[in-house]
Amino acid sequence: MFSSDLQNLIDRLAKLPGLGPRSGRRVALHLLKNRDDKLRPLVDAMQTAAAQLTDCATCGNLDTQTPCTICLNPKRDSKVLCVVEGVADLWAVERSGSYKGHYHILGGTLSALEGVRPEDLRIDGLVTRAQQGSVEEVILALNATVDGQTTAHYIMDKLEHLGVDVTALAQGVPLGGELDYLDDGTLLTAMNSRRRMGS
Amino acid sequence: MFSSDLQNLIDRLAKLPGLGPRSGRRVALHLLKNRDDKLRPLVDAMQTAAAQLTDCATCGNLDTQTPCTICLNPKRDSKVLCVVEGVADLWAVERSGSYKGHYHILGGTLSALEGVRPEDLRIDGLVTRAQQGSVEEVILALNATVDGQTTAHYIMDKLEHLGVDVTALAQGVPLGGELDYLDDGTLLTAMNSRRRMGS
Repeated sequence: MFSSDLQNLIDRLAKLPGLGPRSGRRVALHLLKNRDDKLRPLVDAMQTAAAQLTDCATCGNLDTQTPCTICLNPKRDSKVLCVVEGVADLWAVERSGSYKGHYHILGGTLSALEGVRPEDLRIDGLVTRAQQGSVEEVILALNATVDGQTTAHYIMDKLEHLGVDVTALAQGVPLGGELDYLDDGTLLTAMNSRRRMGS
Repeated sequence: MFSSDLQNLIDRLAKLPGLGPRSGRRVALHLLKNRDDKLRPLVDAMQTAAAQLTDCATCGNLDTQTPCTICLNPKRDSKVLCVVEGVADLWAVERSGSYKGHYHILGGTLSALEGVRPEDLRIDGLVTRAQQGSVEEVILALNATVDGQTTAHYIMDKLEHLGVDVTALAQGVPLGGELDYLDDGTLLTAMNSRRRMGS
């Protein structure tokens, strides 16, 4: 029914997160109907973003510079590190407006099922940062999933003898919930009532 | 919070049909995490499709050639024309497997509210094709919306003195429904029980 070029475009769009065959077709048509004011600017935006954006060597955030804007911002509190699974979670915490410290992005969670081991995550980098002396508190803002909590406990074991406070997001995060899906108010409450781990 | 390049990419993705700010962020992250195997092939697919695909001069279908594959296919019945609003509707009819004739894509429906006049649609081209003698039946497969039915009646007025049968999709299309959202079975029923207009 479709030419191979069109089928290829639809297939690639349909595989994007949250899309499917039907929305893939809709988006493909929408783009091809508006080549000059939709398709080409989107291609440009994708190419520019791919060329300009890089991972921050310190915290793993996605930015046009490394160290990233957050790591370099002198107004942010470098004594606190917020550990998150991914960039989407950093964005979620930033949207809640509840946090003005630095971040550390793990790049995932430990998972026996998916074969994710400690060395696959940025855990060594976190330990190094926590050892540098300027850090006083590490907030584990991981998803309230089995893998997220397993990872939190693994990290706590690594950090608890370094003389930093290790805290975790507390009330407000529902069981099985994922940070990126929380409303900002719930996240704000959880951030404000974070608890010390192991107590 | 975001660099302007990233914000621009997210904004453009968020404006695609069916997406929003949250899915825009998810898709942007997904693409930037998988630059080589997701982002670049998608950019290539978009550029290739934009360069290769064109509107069929006969029926308005989107294809790599004009006249399109459907218009040139000798196995399809050139005595029947199926009039649809847009390419997505042609795809929906093709998916139903209920039709083996040719198509005519209007490019929209008449709409007083949105200022769409007959000359903005491919209605003249349809009248020309219907006058050529080889066409025996014109099936109006328009959406069961007010605008779709207004357009169907306008076209029927233009065609009824040309000696062609003008039919319309019948039972199965729910009131207010749009073709691209129908399940294929419903569309098949509607195609098989199409009725002669004006009777």
